[in-house]
Amino acid sequence: MKENHKDYANLHKISRHISILAGIGSVLDWDQETYMPQGGADIRAIQLETLAGIIHSEKTGKKFANALEKIIDIPTGKIIAKGLNPKQIAATKAWRSDFIKDVALPKKFVEEFAKTSSQAILSWRNAKQANSFEDFAPFLNKIITLSRKKADLIGFKDHPYDALLDIYEPEATTKDISQLFNSLKKNISALLNKIVNAKQIEDNFLHGKFSHNKQLAFGHRILADMGFDMNHGRLDLSTHPFSSASHPTDSRVTTRIHKTSLMSNISAILHEGGHALYEMGLPQAEYGSPLGDAISLGMHESQSRWWETYIGQSKPFWQHYLPLLKKEFPGKLDHIALDPFFRAVNKVEPSFIRVEADEVTYPLHVILRFEMERDLIDGSLSVRDIPEAWNAKMQELLSITPNTYAEGCLQDVHWSMGGFGYFPTYTLGNLYAAQFFETFGANHSDWENRVAKGELSFIKEWLNEGVHQHGRQYSSFELLKKITGKPFSATAYITYLNDKYKEIYKLK
Amino acid sequence: MKENHKDYANLHKISRHISILAGIGSVLDWDQETYMPQGGADIRAIQLETLAGIIHSEKTGKKFANALEKIIDIPTGKIIAKGLNPKQIAATKAWRSDFIKDVALPKKFVEEFAKTSSQAILSWRNAKQANSFEDFAPFLNKIITLSRKKADLIGFKDHPYDALLDIYEPEATTKDISQLFNSLKKNISALLNKIVNAKQIEDNFLHGKFSHNKQLAFGHRILADMGFDMNHGRLDLSTHPFSSASHPTDSRVTTRIHKTSLMSNISAILHEGGHALYEMGLPQAEYGSPLGDAISLGMHESQSRWWETYIGQSKPFWQHYLPLLKKEFPGKLDHIALDPFFRAVNKVEPSFIRVEADEVTYPLHVILRFEMERDLIDGSLSVRDIPEAWNAKMQELLSITPNTYAEGCLQDVHWSMGGFGYFPTYTLGNLYAAQFFETFGANHSDWENRVAKGELSFIKEWLNEGVHQHGRQYSSFELLKKITGKPFSATAYITYLNDKYKEIYKLK
Repeated sequence: MKENHKDYANLHKISRHISILAGIGSVLDWDQETYMPQGGADIRAIQLETLAGIIHSEKTGKKFANALEKIIDIPTGKIIAKGLNPKQIAATKAWRSDFIKDVALPKKFVEEFAKTSSQAILSWRNAKQANSFEDFAPFLNKIITLSRKKADLIGFKDHPYDALLDIYEPEATTKDISQLFNSLKKNISALLNKIVNAKQIEDNFLHGKFSHNKQLAFGHRILADMGFDMNHGRLDLSTHPFSSASHPTDSRVTTRIHKTSLMSNISAILHEGGHALYEMGLPQAEYGSPLGDAISLGMHESQSRWWETYIGQSKPFWQHYLPLLKKEFPGKLDHIALDPFFRAVNKVEPSFIRVEADEVTYPLHVILRFEMERDLIDGSLSVRDIPEAWNAKMQELLSITPNTYAEGCLQDVHWSMGGFGYFPTYTLGNLYAAQFFETFGANHSDWENRVAKGELSFIKEWLNEGVHQHGRQYSSFELLKKITGKPFSATAYITYLNDKYKEIYKLK
Repeated sequence: MKENHKDYANLHKISRHISILAGIGSVLDWDQETYMPQGGADIRAIQLETLAGIIHSEKTGKKFANALEKIIDIPTGKIIAKGLNPKQIAATKAWRSDFIKDVALPKKFVEEFAKTSSQAILSWRNAKQANSFEDFAPFLNKIITLSRKKADLIGFKDHPYDALLDIYEPEATTKDISQLFNSLKKNISALLNKIVNAKQIEDNFLHGKFSHNKQLAFGHRILADMGFDMNHGRLDLSTHPFSSASHPTDSRVTTRIHKTSLMSNISAILHEGGHALYEMGLPQAEYGSPLGDAISLGMHESQSRWWETYIGQSKPFWQHYLPLLKKEFPGKLDHIALDPFFRAVNKVEPSFIRVEADEVTYPLHVILRFEMERDLIDGSLSVRDIPEAWNAKMQELLSITPNTYAEGCLQDVHWSMGGFGYFPTYTLGNLYAAQFFETFGANHSDWENRVAKGELSFIKEWLNEGVHQHGRQYSSFELLKKITGKPFSATAYITYLNDKYKEIYKLK
C-alpha cells in the first residue's frame, strides 16, 4: 500500500510541474489583456506558444505516461494500484481521460491548429470591422476542416461534434444537447412571447453619467462582500472582462466600465467574481492534480452565472445595494423604488448581441450557435450559407434580423479560435446553477432575508463546501446529483425563469 | 560555408528558446513587483524556481552543447566552423564563455544556493526591521560559504573574488578593481573634503508637497522626451524602482513617488529609463544570441547613470525642464532661478544610505562594500566583525557613523541574495559613462544648446548607434576603446567630477 501511495505522489508531482507551467501561462495571458504594451504582442504570442509546446510535450511525454501506467491501465481504465482512496481513484481516472485526449492530437496537428486559428482571429477581427463575411469565410473553412479532423483524431461514437463537446463538457453528447435545447427553445419561446406582449419595463435610469472611479469602487465593494480575498486576487480593467487564476492564491478578475451605463460593470464584477471564487475555493493541497482543478467549463459558468443572475439580479440583493447605489451616485436614482429597479435590471428585450443579452433571451443565442456548429461540423451546413442560416434562426428565435454581419454571424471570436463545442457550456452552466439554486433555497429558507441585510459570504461558503472543495472528484452530473439529490435536468431552470418573469412582467 | 551558417543558425535557434523562457521570467518578476497580490508570493516563487530549473537544464543540456561544439572547440575556444563573420565569431565566443560558467555550477548547487538565499532574504528583511545583525549573521555565514564554493567551482587565478566579479563584469579582476578604487578613493576624498568645507547649498525648495499625479505625468513626459517608446514599454509604480525587459519590444520601468520630494521620482525615471533604452535598442534580429544581449551589468549601469546624472543633473537639462516644472507646480518654485536649482539637484552631503547618495559620495559607498566583500570572500574578514568594520569604513570614507544596523550594514539586499561581486558594477558603470560622455561632448559640441532647447532624442540615437546596436559583439573595454579611442580609465570621471563640482561649490 505504501508503494502505491508513492506512485500516486510521484504522478502528482509530475502533474504539478505541468500545472505550474500552465499557471505561468495564465499570468502571461492576464498581462496581455491588462497592462502589456501593444507593441509587445508578437513576442507575447511567441512566449505563449513556447510555453504551450513545453506543456504539451510534458503532458504527452514518457515521464508522465510511465507514472500514470503504474497506477492505471491506460487502454482499459482499470486501476492497478492497490490502496488508493476514492478521491485518488477519481483523480487517476481524470488523469487518464485527459491523457487520452492529449495524446490523440499529435504535436504537428496542435501546432497547425494554433497557427491557423491565430491567422483566423486576425482575419475575423478585420472582417468584422469591414463587415465582410466573405473575407473571413476561407479562414473559417480551414478551421472547420481542422475541427473535423480534430474530432476524428479524438474519436466519437455517434456524431463528430460529440468529440468537440467532450473537450469542454465531458458528459455532453450532441444528441442529448439537441433534445435539451429543443425543449428549452419551446419553453423559452413561450415565455418570451408572453413577455413581449406584456407592458414594457422602464430602465432609462440605469443609463446616464456615472463616474468611472465611483463605479470601480462599487465593484470593489461587491467583490469584497462576495468573499473575494484581495490578498489573493486583483480587480483590473480590460476591454472584455475575464477571470484568470494561476493558483488558488492568485486569482484575478477584470471589469469594463461604461460611464453611461451602470449595470455593465456590476454584471461583469459578479460574473467574473463567481469564476474567481471557484478558483480561490479549490483545495490548495491538491494543486496540480485533478482534485485541485475545476470540473468543466459548464460548471465554471454555473458559478459565474450564479452570482451574476441568481444572486445579483435578485430582489433581496438590490434591497441591500440600491440604497448604497443611491448614496454613491446622488441625484441619479433618488426617486427609484426597489421594485422598478429590480424590474429594470431584469428587463427582457430581444437583441442582436449575445454578450449583452438578458437572462431570458441569452439561451436562445446559445442554441442558435449550437445548432449551426453541429451542422457545420457534420457538413449539413456549409460556410457560405452561414449568414443566411444565421439570420433565419435569429428571426425564428428572436423575431429580429441583424443589419450587419458584425451584429450577426461575425460577432463572436469563438469560431475563429476554433472553439467549436464551447458555446453549449454557457447554457449548461445556467442550468446547473438553477438546479443548485433550488437546493440552496431549500437549505437556506432565510437566504432572502440574509442577502437583503447584505450578507453574501454564507453563499460563498455554501458553494465552497458543495462545489469548490471537491475539484474534479465528481463529474458535473455526479455533483449535481450529490448536491441536489436529483439527476441533471432543465426543470429547475424552466421553473425559475417562469416564476421570476411572471412576477416581473405581471404575467398571467 | 553554407553548412557552417546552418550550424550557427541552429545554435541561435536553441539559444533563442532559452531567451524566450528567460523573458517569461522577466514578466513574472515585473508582475511580482507591481501588481501581484501579496498572497500570491509563494506560488510565484515556485513558478520562478520551476522556470529557472528548465532554463538551467536547457543551458547546460546536451542539445545546446552539441550545437555549440559544432562551431567552436569548447576546451580551447578555437573556432571550428568556417565562414563565420566577425560578429558571429564574437557571439560564438560569448556563448562558449557563458556555457563554461553555466556548467561549472551543478544543478544541485544552484538549487541549494537559491534555497539558502531565499531563506537569507527573509531573514535579512526581519533582521533589518528588528535592527538585529545577530539574527542575520548565521544566514550570511551560509551564503558566504556557498559563495566561496561558487568561486571554487567557477575557478580563478589569483583571488576567489575574481570568479564572482566575472559573473557580473567579465573583464574585472580583484587586483585591478582594488587599484582603481584606491585611486578613486583618494581623488574623491580630496574633492569631498573641499566640498564639505565650502558654503553649503540650499535645497529646501525640492521638498514640500508635490501632487502624485502631476509627478507621474512629469515622469511620463521625461520618458517620452528621452525616446522611450510607450508602444513598447510601460511606466508603473513599485516600492523600489526597477527596469525589466522581456524583449526589445516590451521593456518596462517603474518609479516611486514621494509626495514631499520632487527629485526621487525624476531620478528614478531617468535612471530606469536609461536601462530600458538599452534593452529597447538591442537588435531584434539578434534576439536570443549574445548579439542581442547587453554586455554586462556595468555597461547597463553606464546607460542608467548617463541619463540620471550626466544628462539629468546637467544645467542645460534644467534650463529646459525647470520652466516646465514651475508651470506644473505653480507656487512651489516660482522664484527659483536656474543656477540655484541646478546646484540644489547636485547637492553633496555624506549620508548613510547608498541609494540616496549624491554623485560624489555614491562611489565611496560602493568602495566600502567592495572592500568588505573581497575580505569576506578571502576570509580576512569574518561575519561577526562586519558591523565594526562597516562603521570604521564609514567613518574613514564619509566621516559619519550609522546609528543603527538598518542604516548601516543591513541596508542592502545584495548579500542576502548572494550577489557578491555585484556592487563594483555600479561604479564601473559610472566610469564607463564618464568616458563616453567626454567623447559625446567632443562629437556634439552643441549638445548643451540642444538639450537646453528640450532635444534629447539625438542623445538616445548616439547611444543606440555607439552602444546598444552591438549587443555583446564587443566587451566593455573593447567598446570603450572603439567609441572613445582610449583604453578604459578613471581619468574622464575624475576630471568630470572635479570640473562640475568646482563650479557648483565655487571651489578654488
